[in-house]
Amino acid sequence: MLEKLKLEVIDAGKKLKEYKLITLTGGNVSGRDLETGYIVMTPSGMEYDTLTPDDITVTDLDGNIIEGKRKPSSDLKTHLQIYRAKKDINGIIHTHSTFASCFAVLKEDIPVISTTMANEVGGKVPLSKYAPVGSDELGEHIIEKIGDQKAVLLESHGVFTYGENVSHALTAAVMLEDSAKVYYLTRTIGKPEELPEEEIKRANELFKNVYGQK
Amino acid sequence: MLEKLKLEVIDAGKKLKEYKLITLTGGNVSGRDLETGYIVMTPSGMEYDTLTPDDITVTDLDGNIIEGKRKPSSDLKTHLQIYRAKKDINGIIHTHSTFASCFAVLKEDIPVISTTMANEVGGKVPLSKYAPVGSDELGEHIIEKIGDQKAVLLESHGVFTYGENVSHALTAAVMLEDSAKVYYLTRTIGKPEELPEEEIKRANELFKNVYGQK
Amino acid sequence: MLEKLKLEVIDAGKKLKEYKLITLTGGNVSGRDLETGYIVMTPSGMEYDTLTPDDITVTDLDGNIIEGKRKPSSDLKTHLQIYRAKKDINGIIHTHSTFASCFAVLKEDIPVISTTMANEVGGKVPLSKYAPVGSDELGEHIIEKIGDQKAVLLESHGVFTYGENVSHALTAAVMLEDSAKVYYLTRTIGKPEELPEEEIKRANELFKNVYGQK
Amino acid sequence: MLEKLKLEVIDAGKKLKEYKLITLTGGNVSGRDLETGYIVMTPSGMEYDTLTPDDITVTDLDGNIIEGKRKPSSDLKTHLQIYRAKKDINGIIHTHSTFASCFAVLKEDIPVISTTMANEVGGKVPLSKYAPVGSDELGEHIIEKIGDQKAVLLESHGVFTYGENVSHALTAAVMLEDSAKVYYLTRTIGKPEELPEEEIKRANELFKNVYGQK
Repeated sequence: MLEKLKLEVIDAGKKLKEYKLITLTGGNVSGRDLETGYIVMTPSGMEYDTLTPDDITVTDLDGNIIEGKRKPSSDLKTHLQIYRAKKDINGIIHTHSTFASCFAVLKEDIPVISTTMANEVGGKVPLSKYAPVGSDELGEHIIEKIGDQKAVLLESHGVFTYGENVSHALTAAVMLEDSAKVYYLTRTIGKPEELPEEEIKRANELFKNVYGQK
Repeated sequence: MLEKLKLEVIDAGKKLKEYKLITLTGGNVSGRDLETGYIVMTPSGMEYDTLTPDDITVTDLDGNIIEGKRKPSSDLKTHLQIYRAKKDINGIIHTHSTFASCFAVLKEDIPVISTTMANEVGGKVPLSKYAPVGSDELGEHIIEKIGDQKAVLLESHGVFTYGENVSHALTAAVMLEDSAKVYYLTRTIGKPEELPEEEIKRANELFKNVYGQK
Repeated sequence: MLEKLKLEVIDAGKKLKEYKLITLTGGNVSGRDLETGYIVMTPSGMEYDTLTPDDITVTDLDGNIIEGKRKPSSDLKTHLQIYRAKKDINGIIHTHSTFASCFAVLKEDIPVISTTMANEVGGKVPLSKYAPVGSDELGEHIIEKIGDQKAVLLESHGVFTYGENVSHALTAAVMLEDSAKVYYLTRTIGKPEELPEEEIKRANELFKNVYGQK
Repeated sequence: MLEKLKLEVIDAGKKLKEYKLITLTGGNVSGRDLETGYIVMTPSGMEYDTLTPDDITVTDLDGNIIEGKRKPSSDLKTHLQIYRAKKDINGIIHTHSTFASCFAVLKEDIPVISTTMANEVGGKVPLSKYAPVGSDELGEHIIEKIGDQKAVLLESHGVFTYGENVSHALTAAVMLEDSAKVYYLTRTIGKPEELPEEEIKRANELFKNVYGQK
């Protein structure tokens, strides 16, 4: 069941590897099926290169397993919390991508310092407070920080990105890391300035309404 | 029509990806056909790996579509402004390549600190003032800064490179990023000195007249 | 003999290359066969891409060659010292991976600043005192520093990682480099804080008991 | 003629590309045939991926073309100066590799701060004074600085490495860049110390006499 969504989740995992946002078996990807409301998620501790739809687990919003022989990612609980709280989020990606993680470790937000980040991440990425992996607090802290922007940093840990589908969550993951790298680099030799709020909005609107093929 | 130029534009896009100057669907490439004066441009929001000549749009200098089923890049307008103003430019590339973008974000020029940059970029790369993507001002600010050198930085955004054909614009894009990286790295631990003006000229002449197969 | 273990050792070498933890013929990998107690090790100065089981040397714990036509790695002696001293270590990897080596050169430990390093390296990575390659002192200094964590830095040299099998040593090598990179990056622009000891333990327990497929 | 040496030169070029020490058509490789004394060199401005033995030029020590349809590298003159002055050098590689070039731009030597650099580069890499590409002075300044170590930096330009054959020059090029990166990184956050002279000698002897298969 849900073969198409499973393949989207697997493809996103492979892209994360191609763009070097995940190392070995780190990170995870999930998607929500709009019809059944079921969640489709990558397995715990398996490399993305070799995943097939049979390795992907289907659960309901409470984590009851509907289909699948693999143990789902140990972050399933956190993904489910987010899906229950945010009805318009249908794709979630978690990584420890290097430059985003730097600011999670430094306990800082990532501001919007270029049109690229404005376009594709949509706003300043806030830091959510530390909580152990798998705890209820971890999900609660993330949900508090979810806004118009497509990513939240996890203190001393990594980053969650999300969107209206898996593909949007993937674009946010890749472009946030790109932008976080430029922000890091400029920080070491200068004082990068934030884009004015109206330019962030304008760039994001352009991205939503003008960019891409329909 | 213009199959050969379309393939040049596609190949340049693939090289930009190979050299990691573009991420996902970022950036764009165009070329001018010397005979018809038409402009050939990559589509908006599509990945470069899978482009075929059918995905490339042909327009006249005013942006009227001559051929093509895809929406051209949202930066077409800016490319056309440059082609109208600069008759000797026949290839243009836009990227958000990491190290060049750092100086665009820091609102600084990139000086010539090595013979490599003198050879293949041809001079100091100036910063053009911020203007929103797609605005008339963006193209005007770039055109003001076009000179003997083959690149202009866009404040808080990225970089345009150009040349007498697509291949020259591509070489400038790749070698500028290489040089911007060395400039960045040296800035973090020291004070890189600019090459004297006469050495820049000498290196650039050598590159034009001695380097390569005829 | 020991074909399966030889293939594990070769595969680990190829992964080290894929993750760019080794350059040319640098680094080495060994494993202990639990039944015979023999040690299986990569050859000296050969590239990992082309290794076959015939290139792998089998020795006993005193370095007597049991099988193999190649000269084993010049670090065999140090591996054997570790295997003799630590009965629960059955896989050892040596690299000069870039970011771990930075702290070896700076003569500093690498603290745990993120849950990723807590999970998969298991604790602060200490520096062992300088000793020439191949000397008895080199092995002794490393052994002194072996603890619950899965890696030890070698002053002015590189890093050893180890585990209950080759695969665990490999995971430690890859994830330490990942974590060392984030630690390095955060050090250049801020003051990364260590995770509290109880969070390190909690994360490491989670990794051992919850993470992965059984 | 000299097919084997031509293939060695081409293979070295491809390795330089694989290790990202050259960008586009930058850099060059040459080798001396011990029997005829002829020099075999890569062509000017061609990408390394597609080179065949027919693209390689054979000259005598004075630059008279013995065989080949391509224009040889614009640095041929400098290579020939070195071969005439140093009878024990039979392979030369020139690159603008990123981290070595940083110190060339900063007009600093690269000291030996790790056993890896001691092993495979053999000593501190000195800076040679600026001279224009293709000038007699460029070769003279390099030759003045050639010593036991296998590389010389070129002020505001790049690096030459060399050895008793092409393969040794290649190892020096790759391992210098690796070591220059660690030196750069440690410089940004600390004060890397030089290895004592006796440890450099010891490591280099080990590399020459113990390391590798015979």
